[in-house]
Amino acid sequence: MSKSIKLAILGLGTVGTGVVNLINDNLSELKRRSGRDIIITEVGTRRQRDDIDPSIVQNDDLMAIAASDNVDIVIEVIGGTTLAKDIIMHAIKNGKHVVTANKALLAEHGNEIFALAEAHHVHVAYEAAVAGGIPIIKVMREALAANKIDWLAGIINGTGNFIMTEMRDKGRPFKDVLTEAQELGYAEADPTFDVEGIDAAHKLALLASIAFGIPLQFDKVYCEGITGITLQDVNYAEELGYRIKHLGFAVRRNSEDEQQDSAGIELRVHPTLIPQDALLANVNGVKNAVLVNSHPLGQTLYCGDGAGAGATASAVMADVMDLVRVLGNHDDSEHSHHVPHLAFMPEELSDTPVLRAEQMITGYYLRVHAYDNPGVLADITRILSDAGINIDAILQKPAHKLGQVPVIILTLPVVESQMNLAIEKIERLTAVTDKVVRIRLDELAQ
Amino acid sequence: MSKSIKLAILGLGTVGTGVVNLINDNLSELKRRSGRDIIITEVGTRRQRDDIDPSIVQNDDLMAIAASDNVDIVIEVIGGTTLAKDIIMHAIKNGKHVVTANKALLAEHGNEIFALAEAHHVHVAYEAAVAGGIPIIKVMREALAANKIDWLAGIINGTGNFIMTEMRDKGRPFKDVLTEAQELGYAEADPTFDVEGIDAAHKLALLASIAFGIPLQFDKVYCEGITGITLQDVNYAEELGYRIKHLGFAVRRNSEDEQQDSAGIELRVHPTLIPQDALLANVNGVKNAVLVNSHPLGQTLYCGDGAGAGATASAVMADVMDLVRVLGNHDDSEHSHHVPHLAFMPEELSDTPVLRAEQMITGYYLRVHAYDNPGVLADITRILSDAGINIDAILQKPAHKLGQVPVIILTLPVVESQMNLAIEKIERLTAVTDKVVRIRLDELAQ
Repeated sequence: MSKSIKLAILGLGTVGTGVVNLINDNLSELKRRSGRDIIITEVGTRRQRDDIDPSIVQNDDLMAIAASDNVDIVIEVIGGTTLAKDIIMHAIKNGKHVVTANKALLAEHGNEIFALAEAHHVHVAYEAAVAGGIPIIKVMREALAANKIDWLAGIINGTGNFIMTEMRDKGRPFKDVLTEAQELGYAEADPTFDVEGIDAAHKLALLASIAFGIPLQFDKVYCEGITGITLQDVNYAEELGYRIKHLGFAVRRNSEDEQQDSAGIELRVHPTLIPQDALLANVNGVKNAVLVNSHPLGQTLYCGDGAGAGATASAVMADVMDLVRVLGNHDDSEHSHHVPHLAFMPEELSDTPVLRAEQMITGYYLRVHAYDNPGVLADITRILSDAGINIDAILQKPAHKLGQVPVIILTLPVVESQMNLAIEKIERLTAVTDKVVRIRLDELAQ
Repeated sequence: MSKSIKLAILGLGTVGTGVVNLINDNLSELKRRSGRDIIITEVGTRRQRDDIDPSIVQNDDLMAIAASDNVDIVIEVIGGTTLAKDIIMHAIKNGKHVVTANKALLAEHGNEIFALAEAHHVHVAYEAAVAGGIPIIKVMREALAANKIDWLAGIINGTGNFIMTEMRDKGRPFKDVLTEAQELGYAEADPTFDVEGIDAAHKLALLASIAFGIPLQFDKVYCEGITGITLQDVNYAEELGYRIKHLGFAVRRNSEDEQQDSAGIELRVHPTLIPQDALLANVNGVKNAVLVNSHPLGQTLYCGDGAGAGATASAVMADVMDLVRVLGNHDDSEHSHHVPHLAFMPEELSDTPVLRAEQMITGYYLRVHAYDNPGVLADITRILSDAGINIDAILQKPAHKLGQVPVIILTLPVVESQMNLAIEKIERLTAVTDKVVRIRLDELAQ
């Protein structure tokens, strides 16, 4: 029998407790699959807990645990980007493998952390950091390892998806649903990270790196939340055969692509109209899903719970099982370094630029409010056509106040700078009464 | 720079050619991800091919290639269960790792093949054998390694899904769609393997082993095809909020489960009514998808192309990339054996019995044809209720010939033996004119 694997769990909140419960519940499955005993030797917790097996050392000195001789793998589930970073760096320097669910930390400091891990020949595993229990990190780093990834689109924030689902299914306004999400514990008291798209942007930065082999560049993610989405737009979208989802996109653009003058990568998080009959449009509630378009495989979709104790613990322990299988048979950790942290060999990361927002290419949903004068529709469509923007659909609704009509226009993909100019011109028309509402649109075509 | 990895591809049909094309197309991605040169050194083909790089040795002696010193990994894509088996056994004995897409071979002879591989400390990888490009083998063996899998349900035969989709979407009869599927190349000239569910049963046997840690038991899979599905039933199902899909199920039953007197595993392939709004019900055309219900993760869904050159080559090369990463750093292959072939350590496989058909528990859709006499519905429902079978919905259609009415009944889950007895009694009613049509039903509940 090989030696047992010793885990330290730092943080006994929802996720940490979920990991403890998983190990208790599934001990025999873990052993049957790995051939090893997996035991928790230490837990890091501020206050002494009575519900923890007395054979496990409880310690409030997390830095000490990160360096303990009685630990092979450090599981960091305290969150945050300061103490968590210090602990992880300390663990790495002490030759420990690390498993973390900390998307913010990795998105912002991952380049530094992974470099230190390479230098010390240890792994920092992070399946739980993106899309909870969906094994999207493993899928993209390993299962799609022979593919060239063209783009991915993901519902990677459960709170946002819950809100969009409730708005659409029940015709409830944004604020109302947000309050319920907070009551249900889906959203934090300060929901900024979720509803402004920052949490999704953290995850997208990680996904984009492993998709394209670029360094983590969270600061370059274009980020738009869902706070501006109204029921009116949700309903018009449905009427036109689309559904609004809050999505993260990572798209590889080649210089030979139509309309694109420079090769680069689009990293963007924003509400998006997608076709109603796409599977992604039917992923509802707090579920997450990632759609990956790659060559030669084509489109594959991965869907499941993106948060919660069970889903997160499942991902954390999948990482542990990977490490157990690697650690199992030899002690020379330098030899066990199979899957690069960011999917590509560190020396092979490319400096393909991240495109600026004005360079991004997407379709658009436009809602223009104008007085119902003869000629105003002709003026609007002329402006779009002069800018080289192709209209895919128009929906003109009956006048709803003082002779104003909402005109809904769907366009084919266009460079954002072109659209900005066109919208400026439309807003200058005397018949146009309000700012133009714009939401991006994607057909999710192969 | 580490040494390059040498591949032999045995068979240059659709899949073999797909693998060659993938390597040509994505050479730089493969190198960037693995840090190694991956080269094809030999191909096994009956006739000399002009379109193959002249540096690659072409040989019609496949057994010789399987033992060649110039080969690290043998990719078997010739299919069949005789020559393919001899070649794989020979390759294993010669210390080669094997990658295969051969579901029939593994479902029928996998226990023997994997045992030989264990003895020779080599890997036999088979991602491409189930669900084509969807990485379901990796997901279940690795990503869900910390979960206890309760059940899985999969659309694992693209031809069958294409036929069911066309019947439902376009109201076309089975035979008509089958002919088109054959013309499109989705179905073989002899479509038995697809439409009778045998191909799905091969894949289900593999999925069940890695889900539950049991030996491969293809011969115990209960197997029902789609040849008996009529448009009438497709339409009644829709009317009741369900959709008929051809699914493979692997279900763990515990003796404490309701109605189940003995612990065991259900392995079954059959047409199934599932709720219309389930994602699985909206996986259309030749797409495959697998829904896995596990603890503590809950339900996750994996969807993509289940066949075709690109999807299969993607899976074959994912296996190669795994091997490259393992082989990369040391020569002692005994030490590189991380993921057990059937997900669980060979000595940990369990002998949990596969349940007989009569022991299986599912809901049912029943279509009963009866003369529209007063009392006949009362008689039918009395028989079901006496057998302890709970009715979930009833749909009685207007009489359509000679005063006969079709009565559609949906039931809650019941042991098959109970249902058999009830159906016998119903068919003995004088008012009942035809055999009762039965199709299984599953709510896919968490």
